[in-house]
Amino acid sequence: MRVAALSDFLLQRIDRSCGKPVNRQLYQVIREAILTHVMPVGLQLPSSRDLARELSIARNTVTYAYEQLMAEGYLETRAGAGTFVADTVPDQIPEVAASNSLRPMQAGSLGLSERGAQLVKHAGAYKFQWGAFMPGVPDVTAFPNKVWSRLQNKYWRRSRSELLTYGHGGGHAPLREAIAEYLRVARSVNCSAEQVIVTSGIHQSIDLASKLLADVGDRAWVEDPCYWGTRNVLTSLNLKPVPIAVDAEGISPRNSDLRHPPRFIFVTPSHQYPLGQVMSLSRRRMLLEYADMHNVWIMEDDYDSEFRYASRPLASLQGMDTHDRVLYFGSFSKTLFPGLRVGFVVVPLALADAFATGLSDLYRCGQLFTQAVLADFMVEGHFASHIRRMRVLYAERQQLLREAISRNFGDALAISGDDAGLHLALLLPERCDDAAVCRQAQEQGIIVRPLSGYYMKPSRAKPGLILGYACVPSEMVGPTFDRLAGIIRRHL
Amino acid sequence: MRVAALSDFLLQRIDRSCGKPVNRQLYQVIREAILTHVMPVGLQLPSSRDLARELSIARNTVTYAYEQLMAEGYLETRAGAGTFVADTVPDQIPEVAASNSLRPMQAGSLGLSERGAQLVKHAGAYKFQWGAFMPGVPDVTAFPNKVWSRLQNKYWRRSRSELLTYGHGGGHAPLREAIAEYLRVARSVNCSAEQVIVTSGIHQSIDLASKLLADVGDRAWVEDPCYWGTRNVLTSLNLKPVPIAVDAEGISPRNSDLRHPPRFIFVTPSHQYPLGQVMSLSRRRMLLEYADMHNVWIMEDDYDSEFRYASRPLASLQGMDTHDRVLYFGSFSKTLFPGLRVGFVVVPLALADAFATGLSDLYRCGQLFTQAVLADFMVEGHFASHIRRMRVLYAERQQLLREAISRNFGDALAISGDDAGLHLALLLPERCDDAAVCRQAQEQGIIVRPLSGYYMKPSRAKPGLILGYACVPSEMVGPTFDRLAGIIRRHL
Repeated sequence: MRVAALSDFLLQRIDRSCGKPVNRQLYQVIREAILTHVMPVGLQLPSSRDLARELSIARNTVTYAYEQLMAEGYLETRAGAGTFVADTVPDQIPEVAASNSLRPMQAGSLGLSERGAQLVKHAGAYKFQWGAFMPGVPDVTAFPNKVWSRLQNKYWRRSRSELLTYGHGGGHAPLREAIAEYLRVARSVNCSAEQVIVTSGIHQSIDLASKLLADVGDRAWVEDPCYWGTRNVLTSLNLKPVPIAVDAEGISPRNSDLRHPPRFIFVTPSHQYPLGQVMSLSRRRMLLEYADMHNVWIMEDDYDSEFRYASRPLASLQGMDTHDRVLYFGSFSKTLFPGLRVGFVVVPLALADAFATGLSDLYRCGQLFTQAVLADFMVEGHFASHIRRMRVLYAERQQLLREAISRNFGDALAISGDDAGLHLALLLPERCDDAAVCRQAQEQGIIVRPLSGYYMKPSRAKPGLILGYACVPSEMVGPTFDRLAGIIRRHL
Repeated sequence: MRVAALSDFLLQRIDRSCGKPVNRQLYQVIREAILTHVMPVGLQLPSSRDLARELSIARNTVTYAYEQLMAEGYLETRAGAGTFVADTVPDQIPEVAASNSLRPMQAGSLGLSERGAQLVKHAGAYKFQWGAFMPGVPDVTAFPNKVWSRLQNKYWRRSRSELLTYGHGGGHAPLREAIAEYLRVARSVNCSAEQVIVTSGIHQSIDLASKLLADVGDRAWVEDPCYWGTRNVLTSLNLKPVPIAVDAEGISPRNSDLRHPPRFIFVTPSHQYPLGQVMSLSRRRMLLEYADMHNVWIMEDDYDSEFRYASRPLASLQGMDTHDRVLYFGSFSKTLFPGLRVGFVVVPLALADAFATGLSDLYRCGQLFTQAVLADFMVEGHFASHIRRMRVLYAERQQLLREAISRNFGDALAISGDDAGLHLALLLPERCDDAAVCRQAQEQGIIVRPLSGYYMKPSRAKPGLILGYACVPSEMVGPTFDRLAGIIRRHL
């Protein structure tokens, strides 16, 4: 390639009006020409002076491109001879026998793994995370921003650098203390601060526990219906979620289930998700006895136990456990705000060290700053008073929603769930297409999720609507439900 | 059990001086007595008035305990008859045939899974995360707290509630834009904002990619030596890290390796971790060609590429890839501060949707507030200027460390790694026990990590010390290394 031919080639590919510096363009065009063998190994390049003249650009521009290409190994200089395309063509790569080859890429599969394809297919997270009637989201507009901001600024002013680096162990010690203290008093959890492992939420808590306590192929009982996140995290780790029916007393394994002890039992004893019933005492005792007998771990998800409106809160299952078989999962997503991303798992004392080690190693934790602010927020009493205020607010909104349901449907549609939590499950008649109701509602800007989607076993799936009321302004609860009722009626 | 016997039993177990409310104590003692069958099903309890008198406590105290026990199902009232222990003893649980039983708990195993036990055994995270010569930690005291705090307060004042709830998709859009823009200019990464998936750091990026693109048992090439976190995250997901030797040009697979294409190839082309060499151009081309030929994913960890002190930064491997086989991993842990917990992975466009979905579903993201502040920090130019300042500071510290090494050892000990990054690897003579050096250094308050610990294959392991200088105040670099040199000499 002569200087003139090369400069023609380059001129055609450089666009002075595109806003990108010409030296970068020159570098990229030459690089691509070398990678695609348009400029072969050993080709001599014109001097920077000659090329600059041919291209009518500053010599500096050419020098910049040449130097970058030399630094990266595309060009080399030979003393007294000039600049050449370097020999960087890789050696012949050995052929691979067919039997050693990877599984072939299937058309449209994008190269996802089996578990990856399953995950994307059964994704449960929702695009909308706010508004009537999004379940599981608290009223973040009622969060005391000013208090939080004040505590936050206190730490940033002091500039405590040990809070800016990686965490090690189970989390920021003062936060672990504050959580343990709160759980002992409010939830009758038996624990010391050492047993509290601070995570980024229930998903990380499940991931950690599954990696430390289960191996590929292990089975985990989940309530059917249950939270989609639990089964998706388990599946992504190649555990097998086994759906167990729930009745009025909570999870209800049959004898045929009991004969095959799983590795884990995931339950929501305080407030079954999403149906809302409280697990009976005899069912609790049965589970504890069974877990002790068969070395099973019980995973207690106490996701919204802070919000009971008429009756008093029940003690945790963990607090009844005398054989260290229960891991207790909680988070601040419902009590403060989801975006905070702070949760925790309380583990038996014998496992505390392993969990602290696993946490540091698997997730390389940090956010100690946020943990320090949260600890102060709890110790200064803001957490307790925020929960008290929210309890009043959500009780009012649940009441407004119950009234709206009753105004529209009388007793024709049943509500599952008691006076607790952030959502109600409105049951629809058999054969009603709850997914279709939700789609039509969404077209009108109302977010509802179909109950049937929470079931793993299709034969058990009941139609219904999960109605989150916590993040709906009180004056909107009734009017929005009235609009939704119009859509529901078309499907009854 | 008569009233008197019961009250004796209770009196022995209640401690008025322990500071715990008597009503809680009473509740717990009765509960435990029921769970352990000391108080059998059907037992009638004395009236609250009688029991209060026997125990010499307020009647309210007894009423509180009784009501809680009733709410939880331990006690029941029968109309006109009084209060009784409820029947909550579980039904007989079927015996499990031995063959169905779980693997037995081994003594001392704590019930950890196989992968859990491996993880704890090979844990790499370190208790100390700050001070001379902790590698991989930037100088967080130089972080512009005031600027960050001001940006943060702007958002909290505006109280944008959509930033407080769960995230959905690949992260906060303005941050994805800012990262894409930065990577295009600074690292020659070919990407649009859509391809940038915001994670909580490299560990989460690897976890996500492994779950989406690999299945149990798939092999992943890792450089030997490499970052401990990469292999631990892979192992926790039941992938098989295959250690591949590195030479002066970077990862160096033999023909026998090449004949068995893995699923992933993890590399650090800009600055091999921890040895520091730059991957040669011909090695880069070989990897890209090989990956294209065998449908292998290349995972490019560009962990500290921002810090090159004399030579100019090299383009990323991703930017050379014309077949969409490279995933590019980065984070803000080294450029801003580790506790921030924001990282990212740039994926081929065809995978962008799957990764955004997987991220939402697996980790239930949030921290959009932090992401918004970080986006402003970048757009307003604070990120670029902070990097420029840190580059000058770290260059000075590396120089001070090189001088201290040369002052103490002349040319007797070689340094691996060029003028880049946050650490140097000081090579020790064969058979020198680098772990012993590190232990003794730690006793004197100096943190160093042994190079040999970064190798997977014991036969390859070279002794040496990984010396992080970035987080060491400049005036301390020399004096601290002089103390360390005293310890090293004893082992030469």
